Amino acid sequence: MTDKMFMGASTKQGLDIANKSREIIRGLIGDDVKDLEPIERDIVERIVHSTADPEYAKLVKISPDFVDAAMASLRNKETILTDINMVKYGITRYEGEVECYIKNEEVVKIAKENQITRAAAAMRYAASNDFEGIVVSGNAPTAVFEAMDLYAKGEMNLKAIVGVPVGFVGAADSKEALHNSEIPNIIVEGPKGGTPIAVACVNSLIQHL
Amino acid sequence: MTDKMFMGASTKQGLDIANKSREIIRGLIGDDVKDLEPIERDIVERIVHSTADPEYAKLVKISPDFVDAAMASLRNKETILTDINMVKYGITRYEGEVECYIKNEEVVKIAKENQITRAAAAMRYAASNDFEGIVVSGNAPTAVFEAMDLYAKGEMNLKAIVGVPVGFVGAADSKEALHNSEIPNIIVEGPKGGTPIAVACVNSLIQHL
Repeated sequence: MTDKMFMGASTKQGLDIANKSREIIRGLIGDDVKDLEPIERDIVERIVHSTADPEYAKLVKISPDFVDAAMASLRNKETILTDINMVKYGITRYEGEVECYIKNEEVVKIAKENQITRAAAAMRYAASNDFEGIVVSGNAPTAVFEAMDLYAKGEMNLKAIVGVPVGFVGAADSKEALHNSEIPNIIVEGPKGGTPIAVACVNSLIQHL
Repeated sequence: MTDKMFMGASTKQGLDIANKSREIIRGLIGDDVKDLEPIERDIVERIVHSTADPEYAKLVKISPDFVDAAMASLRNKETILTDINMVKYGITRYEGEVECYIKNEEVVKIAKENQITRAAAAMRYAASNDFEGIVVSGNAPTAVFEAMDLYAKGEMNLKAIVGVPVGFVGAADSKEALHNSEIPNIIVEGPKGGTPIAVACVNSLIQHL
């Protein structure tokens, strides 16, 4: 990552703002991230940058194999599969595919037939359509549970999960389950999470390619 | 708004989660929102739903004319202009146009020539291309400042600003300036804000159309 690219800034004014922001963030969360690897630290800094919420420095948990597994997948230009379109459109500068199937007709059908969320149905759809890559959930705990389940059954070729769904119902449980699994993962403890957290994590990794 | 549509849920499982979430949120922030009008309360509940951060109930400030001005604009199917694409793709079920010009070639040129951010340049571009509607900024304080400036000069036909940019540099100032202006507005006090807050606000209004 060059300083020029930090936080996606592409103009002089944008870059000045990004650099000043980084200084402030380091002042706020330096102690929390001092034991992290450089890429892990960048991820956490970018999450705090995109939420202005320093509490994330305490809540983000990264499995020891996450960065290596995710970077290998991204280097191979494997697919990034997001739970909702907002996350998809926040991910920038990736040379591989970024997919979201939540509005796919087949997915809507699978959801109705099985009485599951469209986010979960989209995982089933991807798994049965040769998906290989990273699952990114910023919103739907049901997507995380479904991806874990498909992985456990050997039906989904996923390399890592960015599991940061937000909400008071199911989100914390899904993230705890993911963090206790053998899948390389990054999570946010508790109900907090969401699109900006998912996007910050992925874009941070992409900048290190 | 029907209960069926709450929070965008469209399946039985999604609806159950949304309803349980709403109960929990009302327990957490009921006191903070008890003096708000029903639509204002829905906006704040949806913001807390999409961030799992009850602090937003204390930080969101809505000008008394915001809901009426924004609803009138949306009823007329005027344009929703967002600062970044992530916000654009989070807005759903709107029958008018949702536009974002940050990647427009002309905008990139304006930004370079004037040494301003692309987010600010996009406001100038919209203003000089017959924009009429609501400006929604979830990320760039420079977009808020520029839109306010264009409005003050009589050069931008905006009806309301959803001004919830996030960040430690400039964001709080831009929001305070906006809230002290005569433009109908909703803001978040301090550095917090971001895409989910902007999207929650707009989607909540759309559900009340």
